[in-house]
Amino acid sequence: MCFNEEKIVNEIIHFIRNYFKDNKLKGVVIGISGGKDSAVVATLFTKALGHDNVEGIWMPCNSNTEDYQDAKLLCNKLKINLNEFDLTNIYNLFNDNIDCNIKKTSLIDANINLKPRLRMTTLYYYASILSKTKNGTYIVAGTSNKSELYVGYFTKGGDNSCDIEILSDLTVTEVIKIGEYLKIPDKIIHKIPNDGLSNQTDEEKLGVTYHDIDLFINNELSSINIENQNKIVKLHNNNLHKFTRAKYRKDNNENRNICR
Amino acid sequence: MCFNEEKIVNEIIHFIRNYFKDNKLKGVVIGISGGKDSAVVATLFTKALGHDNVEGIWMPCNSNTEDYQDAKLLCNKLKINLNEFDLTNIYNLFNDNIDCNIKKTSLIDANINLKPRLRMTTLYYYASILSKTKNGTYIVAGTSNKSELYVGYFTKGGDNSCDIEILSDLTVTEVIKIGEYLKIPDKIIHKIPNDGLSNQTDEEKLGVTYHDIDLFINNELSSINIENQNKIVKLHNNNLHKFTRAKYRKDNNENRNICR
Repeated sequence: MCFNEEKIVNEIIHFIRNYFKDNKLKGVVIGISGGKDSAVVATLFTKALGHDNVEGIWMPCNSNTEDYQDAKLLCNKLKINLNEFDLTNIYNLFNDNIDCNIKKTSLIDANINLKPRLRMTTLYYYASILSKTKNGTYIVAGTSNKSELYVGYFTKGGDNSCDIEILSDLTVTEVIKIGEYLKIPDKIIHKIPNDGLSNQTDEEKLGVTYHDIDLFINNELSSINIENQNKIVKLHNNNLHKFTRAKYRKDNNENRNICR
Repeated sequence: MCFNEEKIVNEIIHFIRNYFKDNKLKGVVIGISGGKDSAVVATLFTKALGHDNVEGIWMPCNSNTEDYQDAKLLCNKLKINLNEFDLTNIYNLFNDNIDCNIKKTSLIDANINLKPRLRMTTLYYYASILSKTKNGTYIVAGTSNKSELYVGYFTKGGDNSCDIEILSDLTVTEVIKIGEYLKIPDKIIHKIPNDGLSNQTDEEKLGVTYHDIDLFINNELSSINIENQNKIVKLHNNNLHKFTRAKYRKDNNENRNICR
């Protein structure tokens, strides 16, 4: 295996410190879910910036108690603040505001994607307030990993709206290795990932395992059965729109010829 | 003048139709503010897709009555739905949820940027619900123009989170020309732009006029005084971070050498 945890951790710490120094930033805001990705992100930022400059935000919205306990466990271990911002009432108001003639079943998908967008909004809200109260700019860290991004398993304008990403080039397999190297509690690092939104695990929802996705990303196609290869290709292609916006551009050549 | 309104309008309609056809989309959701940008966007989408496939959303949050009347005037003229979604209670809950020890003055900037993020969240919420209830995919249209984008006058994760942009290559001067060509009411097209957030006009807030920004974009520097040139350069450079995210990337060359 050529993946060197120590080297990657040092590179990430170096990357964070340089970025903060170059841009005269003070601190970072991280949504703490109780899962592995936000745990690894919080640990690396704490190593890079010190615990005073890292703020965890726990944003429950019909969330489960175990996740809260794990979020608390992590932040206690790192000695970082865990701010609580309950989104339940805000989330419910979205449902209440919508025309009552709309069937509840039509709201299911809308509600699933509503939560990550409200969480992004909350993280930026905290970043802005902390920038005032602590006299220095706070930015928002993303927690998406390379495997999730590859299959488009994120919400546009939600968890992919952030200022800095440190896991976006690391597969789930690699994030777990980094988490073990950083001695993050096993129950967090090896928790079965779910989005906390749809009552399904990530892998149930995707229809493929992260193990297969990671093999695919590393071009090890012969280790994955054809059906799962097809699923991965389809997820990737169908979600490519999430990385871009369609933009009209003037037909510049013609305009230039007329103008000049 | 080499700007040909008719040609640009036809190009945009063609661009929208092609994009919807290629991606098998049904309709579009547009936040209607009562200002010129959303009016031009709504008019062009209505021309391209027909009034049944365009949904306007009015999202007041301590908004003024005149803007609502203009939003209503526009949508009546276009024969498109104007859905209303009042964000005031949701907005207030954000303030209420925050620790009461934080001074009100620390919330000002946070609140200004909160509104566009809640509006983006609402537009996607409608797009998702309409996709269910109308049996076909609805997407979210952005309304930013090239001048605003150039100086970074938008909220990250807010008004710049959308699926399709048709004004992002048109300056304010050009958007106004298109609006006049489309016979959008003068009171909308020539309304003095303000963000509806900070009680200042855009130009007061930016400290420069859109006229100067548009000259700058067209490289006509000799027509702008030095002080305003400097302001525009500074706004542009200081807001470049809004267009990107800092991303850690593995030092691939080295990893490749070890692996292969």
